[in-house]
Amino acid sequence: MQRSRRWFLRASAFWSSAAIACRGRSGAPPAEPRSIGAPISAYGARSRFEKAARFVNRNTKAPLEEAASQTPLHDTFGIITPSSLHFERHHSGVPEIDPAAHRLTIHGLVDRPLVLTVDELKRLPSISRIHFLECSGNSSSEWRGGSSGSDVQRIHGLTSCGEWTGVSAALLLRECGVHADAAWVLAEGADAGKHDRSIPMQKMMDDALVVYGQNGEPLRPEQGYPLRLLLPGWEGNANVKWLRRLKVTDQAAMTREETSKYTDLMPDGTARQFTFVMEPKSVITQPSGGDRLPVAGVYEVTGIAWSGRGAIARVEITTDGGATWAAADLQTPVLPRAHTRFRWLWKWDGRNAVIASRCTDETGYTQPPLGELIARRGTNSFYHNNGIQAWRVAPDGTITNGNRA
Amino acid sequence: MQRSRRWFLRASAFWSSAAIACRGRSGAPPAEPRSIGAPISAYGARSRFEKAARFVNRNTKAPLEEAASQTPLHDTFGIITPSSLHFERHHSGVPEIDPAAHRLTIHGLVDRPLVLTVDELKRLPSISRIHFLECSGNSSSEWRGGSSGSDVQRIHGLTSCGEWTGVSAALLLRECGVHADAAWVLAEGADAGKHDRSIPMQKMMDDALVVYGQNGEPLRPEQGYPLRLLLPGWEGNANVKWLRRLKVTDQAAMTREETSKYTDLMPDGTARQFTFVMEPKSVITQPSGGDRLPVAGVYEVTGIAWSGRGAIARVEITTDGGATWAAADLQTPVLPRAHTRFRWLWKWDGRNAVIASRCTDETGYTQPPLGELIARRGTNSFYHNNGIQAWRVAPDGTITNGNRA
Repeated sequence: MQRSRRWFLRASAFWSSAAIACRGRSGAPPAEPRSIGAPISAYGARSRFEKAARFVNRNTKAPLEEAASQTPLHDTFGIITPSSLHFERHHSGVPEIDPAAHRLTIHGLVDRPLVLTVDELKRLPSISRIHFLECSGNSSSEWRGGSSGSDVQRIHGLTSCGEWTGVSAALLLRECGVHADAAWVLAEGADAGKHDRSIPMQKMMDDALVVYGQNGEPLRPEQGYPLRLLLPGWEGNANVKWLRRLKVTDQAAMTREETSKYTDLMPDGTARQFTFVMEPKSVITQPSGGDRLPVAGVYEVTGIAWSGRGAIARVEITTDGGATWAAADLQTPVLPRAHTRFRWLWKWDGRNAVIASRCTDETGYTQPPLGELIARRGTNSFYHNNGIQAWRVAPDGTITNGNRA
Repeated sequence: MQRSRRWFLRASAFWSSAAIACRGRSGAPPAEPRSIGAPISAYGARSRFEKAARFVNRNTKAPLEEAASQTPLHDTFGIITPSSLHFERHHSGVPEIDPAAHRLTIHGLVDRPLVLTVDELKRLPSISRIHFLECSGNSSSEWRGGSSGSDVQRIHGLTSCGEWTGVSAALLLRECGVHADAAWVLAEGADAGKHDRSIPMQKMMDDALVVYGQNGEPLRPEQGYPLRLLLPGWEGNANVKWLRRLKVTDQAAMTREETSKYTDLMPDGTARQFTFVMEPKSVITQPSGGDRLPVAGVYEVTGIAWSGRGAIARVEITTDGGATWAAADLQTPVLPRAHTRFRWLWKWDGRNAVIASRCTDETGYTQPPLGELIARRGTNSFYHNNGIQAWRVAPDGTITNGNRA
């Protein structure tokens, strides 16, 4: 109750700003439908007036089958990412898999290997949870000082959040009778490149899911239809899509994807390997790069925060480049390892400003300034950039990437 | 931790049943993609192998523009209903509205009338919440003993749940300066029939939202694009779609939709009017009418529960027609006025059984047996059937509507 009272007191300032200039509007009332509309339908689609899209970069040498597309974070609401706008990252394109022909094989260091159909998996006890998925290469442009002309979608759009439904991996592995020396599980996809990663047994037995549902309906093809591995809070590429095989082993398989790729090169030439956990991160999505504030006044500053270590405990906002911070409101319920929507009202005085968010998770880890991250990890690193994102607001209201010097 | 241990102990029984007969599978491994798949895309679609659809009844005299379509509850997961499968109920079809031309007018007993564009609303402080919407006519077939051949979609599919984003109605009304004698708000849609309902001011100031977002993206046309009223926990028709006008008044407008329609005729000939709140209700969605259990064994019994009065406190399952009841597991977090997924493991012995769920909400209201509801309200009533739904399981595993005598 206290929060909502405070909220309204602060919100009342909104109306005094010219951001809303709706009183005294004159002229004819808008045209209204005078005829019967469209009939009911079996499966709906969005309005033809809506154009939000995943960003598809066509200026690369890589083919679009070996590419990524990014969620339009600026134009999505709340914490659920629409399945049609969930980010993509494929190494061999999106396979078209007939679920009736698909199988999940569990073998290796087990007493009883299993081969399961999708329908059999769907008959097992189910679990649904809301979790984010983030590509470890998200925000990688910022290691070297930020790209010019960037917006929040292009910089940070490799993160999305959905309600996933599937079966506990532990349930499956226990049924197989995992041997005492089993320590890893190799997860392999059914895409042409057979994308694979070694997953520690501890994670598999803790909270890993074999998922068939996304936001209430079957997984989308781009997200691994008909089955994917879901490792709450862990980097996207380990959440193997089009999952066809779990091989229980006593050591990591050292596949290409965990040796030459998906390791983090440090300044001293060594590489951090198996850096699975996505560390706490937040970003202001509105207003953000590419926006233009029309006049001085009160604006809602909103964005998302998430942590692979658990729930977000706190999000703070600065409008003076980090000199002072104020607590934002968090949308409830705050879910562990899920996007958390934050909101905060800002009275912009029409001068230069640098706005940014930083989050702290329930383990006490606070998102670091970008400079601090670079000082620790150097700029050889490509992955796991969770530094604070600054947005620079000019007196004319234009907003640009504040990470650039 | 106790819960999950118990869960696994119970789940282990699963594997001994022939419901899963996956061991010893032989033959060639399934075909795998050997070529590069599809490229990334701007806006995704579901797999062509998936066919779940809203039920569209073509055997009525009403045109499909003045009709309803129902969510396939049997085939949806978790608590989020995919926007493409959210139930529909339209009186004049789905208007196609250009959001740039749409306006929301707030007038009547106010000091300062407001005319707002959609963009202006989007700049105001926002709120996102997960709530169900249920048509007051949902489950109406059961007043007279249940329809033969019915499945959960046809009987109960006029309920759905989503994450809605919009602006507090109280924020808008406060800015207008509501007069002291204001007691009602007439909400009017921009469909051809100008669907309208009178809403008590208290609800408008409590938790009503003017919504523009659904599951992370703009409202779907069938759900009121570009704006709808959202009254958490209240009957669907009061959540006016394609919202164009809020008129503040000192009494209810007594429109057609709240006099000849949407009232509940009691046995004594009087009618209950303004029965807005959707009372606690639950239904087993799997296994349910139309399913066939292949053999005796352990099955997951799952479904959804919801209450317009607040959060679900408890869901119980019977397999002996109501003689004994056992507590189901609730998917967390349990959200107020939202679908709540329940799950329970059942060892079916292969004999006749009658399975059902009943829920109790945080106010202590328990979903009534259908007979008790009929005894109180008679069978003149069409709306607000929240009676317990029974499913009859025959020795051959076929499942039919257990509400029929």
